[in-house]
Amino acid sequence: MERDLIRRIARAAERAAAGLVAGIGDDCAVGAPTPGHVLLLTTDTLAEGVHFRLETTDPFRLGRKTAAVNLSDIAAMGGRPRWALLSLAVPAGLDPAFWDPFLAGLTERLEAFGAALAGGDTVRSPGGLVLTLALAGEAEPGRVMGRAGARPGDIVYCSGPLGEAAAGLALLEAGLCPHRPRPAAFRRLVRAQLDPEPRLGLGRALAATGAVTAAIDLSDGLATDLAHLCEAGGVGAEVDAARLPLSRALRRAARRLDRRPLDWALAGGEDYELLWTVPPGREGEVRAAAARALGRPPHRIGRIVAGRGVRLREGARRRDITFTGHEHRF
Amino acid sequence: MERDLIRRIARAAERAAAGLVAGIGDDCAVGAPTPGHVLLLTTDTLAEGVHFRLETTDPFRLGRKTAAVNLSDIAAMGGRPRWALLSLAVPAGLDPAFWDPFLAGLTERLEAFGAALAGGDTVRSPGGLVLTLALAGEAEPGRVMGRAGARPGDIVYCSGPLGEAAAGLALLEAGLCPHRPRPAAFRRLVRAQLDPEPRLGLGRALAATGAVTAAIDLSDGLATDLAHLCEAGGVGAEVDAARLPLSRALRRAARRLDRRPLDWALAGGEDYELLWTVPPGREGEVRAAAARALGRPPHRIGRIVAGRGVRLREGARRRDITFTGHEHRF
Repeated sequence: MERDLIRRIARAAERAAAGLVAGIGDDCAVGAPTPGHVLLLTTDTLAEGVHFRLETTDPFRLGRKTAAVNLSDIAAMGGRPRWALLSLAVPAGLDPAFWDPFLAGLTERLEAFGAALAGGDTVRSPGGLVLTLALAGEAEPGRVMGRAGARPGDIVYCSGPLGEAAAGLALLEAGLCPHRPRPAAFRRLVRAQLDPEPRLGLGRALAATGAVTAAIDLSDGLATDLAHLCEAGGVGAEVDAARLPLSRALRRAARRLDRRPLDWALAGGEDYELLWTVPPGREGEVRAAAARALGRPPHRIGRIVAGRGVRLREGARRRDITFTGHEHRF
Repeated sequence: MERDLIRRIARAAERAAAGLVAGIGDDCAVGAPTPGHVLLLTTDTLAEGVHFRLETTDPFRLGRKTAAVNLSDIAAMGGRPRWALLSLAVPAGLDPAFWDPFLAGLTERLEAFGAALAGGDTVRSPGGLVLTLALAGEAEPGRVMGRAGARPGDIVYCSGPLGEAAAGLALLEAGLCPHRPRPAAFRRLVRAQLDPEPRLGLGRALAATGAVTAAIDLSDGLATDLAHLCEAGGVGAEVDAARLPLSRALRRAARRLDRRPLDWALAGGEDYELLWTVPPGREGEVRAAAARALGRPPHRIGRIVAGRGVRLREGARRRDITFTGHEHRF
């Protein structure tokens, strides 16, 4: 099984992008770095029964998502993805027909952003399917965005609607068909859950402005990811509930399932939108750069303040939401 | 649990080696590559019940082995390890006391060879504990060893005794104490299984000669790894059974368990010694370089021939052993 699977991976990776000196088949993949750049390294694991169910996704979209969650980390730092390593822990009963569409989805997603599947490892799993991707990227040394630079007075932006992936998950768990969701309005929520879009073009555009003080991708929900950004910078944040981008589809799903759209937006996780901060004096410029990259304006959702923690303003009320997002789980 | 574990990892990684611009706490780790070098990338996964049992190892040695199996891939290509990413799928019931010794063993092993733990991910496991390390290293572009260059007439060398890790595993499975093995002669076999030594100094020394035509590390047993090397180069190999380095401890364990030492040497796997080929005209020079790096001479075990596959010579008999090594398993 192992040698057959490695052959499939090698075939899928044959179209490896430029810059790969040697690929699958040696003990290591060998890449030619871009002179004068720094190296970005990230890894994410998706585990069956925790991050996905084989019943409510399909191998192709799962491959795309495995790539996307890692690509999103490179996007948050303003980098370009280059080389990926795939580690698989495979349970005995898995249908071998799983692999070709999974690998097609994975490599398609990587290659669309200039990255190549460069190697990996496969082992037998003691439990369910465990998918780990490690991704190396590059960035200009002076243009790497981090989590730590936000200062009181900075404006907080996010790149797109919040809570959609969580709403899509709730709909799937409630029995919605993952392949032809009805009503069609829910299609975008299912897509947000099963096939999220990494914001690489936006990340590059934000980094190029040189004006973004801190950035992070929204993987664990606004309440947790903004808290990470605040903790790293030694600051607090205030988010305006009325300004959070909640789509009509999200509100409709919330009515259907008797849930609060705001809860999904704050705590849902897996949106893979970018969150960033910018000093007021450079807001217009960065907003314009983001709008060009996204094809629509980004969302101004709050402000960095002195102190600690994340507070939500709902009308006259303020409540502490620091780290109330969820760890990933299905 | 996840945030607590990430804090432990961050503490363990605090002493990160030079060359790490940013570490745990951002979406990516940021490394400063050495100008003019190529990047080596490798990953290996160890799964509970497949590659290890928590009953017959300990967290410290498991951390060291998790590092060593990846370091060995960098050694096989002649590189220097630099940055590692650790991905953990953690079952619900795992004792939190596992982590500090595990991380101490992992980072100690990495740092001894100049590499740093630079980041990672932790998720809940659907089954047992799954440990994945991805490791990035560097090498001089003209000095990277690969699997593909062996030519008929080249001599086949390996760096150390074969089958010891498999013998150690068999002894542990038969009930030998992993902490105080008796007789003491078995200690080296247990160490080979639980705490293998990656041959990084040797890898650098071999690469520096510029004379090694192909190299690979022995992770799946000589019969399989030499077959990989032959397949990659479009050649065959003949190995002389009488020349295989089988230690007295190995023979003694084989008598104890009524096994054949030769089977362990050919098929056992997990030795993490290096295997390389060298043209006869440069044999002396490479042998001397290897001896200096190892502190003892390497072992000349066979010859590359035209054709395909790996044959074992036992006296007058020859038998095909191509790919008869075992995939890793406990």
